[in-house]
Amino acid sequence: MMLINGVPADRISADDRGLAFGDGVFRTLQCRDGTPCLWPWQFACLTRDAARLGLPVPDESLLLAELAAACAGLPSAVAKITLTRGSGPRGYAIPAQASATRIVAAHGWTGYPERHARDGVALTWCALRLGLQPRLAGIKHLNRLESVMAKSELPEAFAEGVLLDSDGTVVEGTLSNVFVLHDGRWQTPLLDRCGVAGALRDWVMSQVPVEQVRLLPQDLLRADLLFVCNSLAGIWPVASLDERRWRDFAPVRPLQAALAQEYAARPA
Amino acid sequence: MMLINGVPADRISADDRGLAFGDGVFRTLQCRDGTPCLWPWQFACLTRDAARLGLPVPDESLLLAELAAACAGLPSAVAKITLTRGSGPRGYAIPAQASATRIVAAHGWTGYPERHARDGVALTWCALRLGLQPRLAGIKHLNRLESVMAKSELPEAFAEGVLLDSDGTVVEGTLSNVFVLHDGRWQTPLLDRCGVAGALRDWVMSQVPVEQVRLLPQDLLRADLLFVCNSLAGIWPVASLDERRWRDFAPVRPLQAALAQEYAARPA
Repeated sequence: MMLINGVPADRISADDRGLAFGDGVFRTLQCRDGTPCLWPWQFACLTRDAARLGLPVPDESLLLAELAAACAGLPSAVAKITLTRGSGPRGYAIPAQASATRIVAAHGWTGYPERHARDGVALTWCALRLGLQPRLAGIKHLNRLESVMAKSELPEAFAEGVLLDSDGTVVEGTLSNVFVLHDGRWQTPLLDRCGVAGALRDWVMSQVPVEQVRLLPQDLLRADLLFVCNSLAGIWPVASLDERRWRDFAPVRPLQAALAQEYAARPA
Repeated sequence: MMLINGVPADRISADDRGLAFGDGVFRTLQCRDGTPCLWPWQFACLTRDAARLGLPVPDESLLLAELAAACAGLPSAVAKITLTRGSGPRGYAIPAQASATRIVAAHGWTGYPERHARDGVALTWCALRLGLQPRLAGIKHLNRLESVMAKSELPEAFAEGVLLDSDGTVVEGTLSNVFVLHDGRWQTPLLDRCGVAGALRDWVMSQVPVEQVRLLPQDLLRADLLFVCNSLAGIWPVASLDERRWRDFAPVRPLQAALAQEYAARPA
C-alpha cells in the first residue's frame, strides 16, 4: 500500500527532482499494527535531514495517519517515508515554487532471522571507500549509489560489510551503524564527513554513553565487542570480522532487551 | 513530450530505483529538428556510463527514433535521456530481475544568450568541495545532490562556478567542464576521482590535443585562457574568475567555429 501526497497511488511524476537528482530524503521504519517503532527518533532524523536539504517536513500527525493507512491489514510491516523536492523545471537550481512530494509506503515483513541477534553475525571489509562530503554527511538522502555498489559487492557469506571513507577511517555498515566497546566504553564513528546516521544509532546514544570518534580498522579489530544496528534489524553483535572472532556478547544483551521493550511499547 | 519505455507517459513507478537510490544515468542533449547534436559523443558517454553501473543500453536506433518523437514540432529542443535500473524490491542489492526504465523527454528551448560565447562569462569559486569517489568518477549518474547544492549557492552574477574536490584540486564547473590554455597547450582536469565527463568534453578532446591533468586553483589563475563547456551552452570563454581578468579569446574561436559546424551538420 502506498500513498503519494496522501492519495493512494503508485506512480510519481517523471520530472520529480527525487528521480532527476536524488533531491530528497527517506526513512525506513519497522511498524507493528500500523504504529512505527522508534518514532520519536525516526521523526527527529527525518526533520533534521529535511532541514539540512531545505525541504519542508510534513506535520507529524499527518505522517502517523498515513503510516497507519499504508500498514492497514499488516501486523508487521516495513514502511518507508520518502520526501523529495517535487517536480521542477530542467536544471540543478532549486525552484522557488517547488512543491514537495511525500511518499508513504508499507509492505508486510517477517523480520530477520533471530539467530543474527542471538549468535552474532559475520562481517567483512568493503573494498569501496566512501567519498568525503561534510555537507551531506549523516543525511539519509536519495543519493545512494555508494550504498548500492557496496551492498552488491558484499559476498553472501557476510551479513554486513564495514565501509571505510577515502581517508581510511571507519564509517558504518552498508545498511547499519557500527558500535564498538573498548574497556567498557562505547564508541561509534563520528559521521561528520560521510555516512548515514540511523534512528537506532540515536536511540542507542540515548541509552548508554557513547563517544563519537574517528575509528580506524585496527580499533575495530582490537575491540572487546562490536555490534551493528539499524531500525529493521535491531542490534546484531558481531561474531567475526574476517579473521577476528568474538564470543562474549553479554555487554550487548541489556541494550537488546531495552530495544525489545521499546519496540513492544505503543505510543499513548 | 515524454516517452517512458517507448510509450507516451509522464509518470514512473514510485518504487523505481532511480528515485529510491539514484540508481541510473542520464544525458542532456541539444536537438535541432528532432536530431540530437553531438550524437556519437553523447551515445558513447551514455554507453560508457551505463556499462560502469551495469545497466543495459538501449539500441541506438531506438533512442534516435524516440528522440525524434519526443522533439516532434520542436525545431530547437533540449532532450534528456534517463536510464534507471527500474523497479525493484526494498533494499540496496541489485535485483537479478530488474527491468530498466528508459525515459526520453524533450521541450522547446531557445538557447543561452549569444553574448556568453562571444564576450565570455564571469566565474567564481564554489565553496562546496566534491567528495572523492573513483568508482563513480566521470559518470553522469542520478546522484546529483552535490551539483544541486553547488548550483544553488552560486551567486546570480556568475554564469558558472568552479568546483574543487576535497583535496583542493580543480574538477569542473557546476554544469560544465573546464579547459585551460597554458603556453599553447590545452589541459583539462583528470576526472578519475570525481566529476562528470560531458559529451562536449570528449568532442573537444577529439579536435585538439588536450592533457588530462590535476589542476590547482593557481593553475587556472595563471592560465592564458580558460573556457567552460557543455553540450547545451557550447563553449564559453572565461572573462573573469573572481579578480582575474582575460581579454584575448582568439585561441577559442576555432573551436567554437568547429562546434557550430558540428551542430549544423546532420547525420546521414
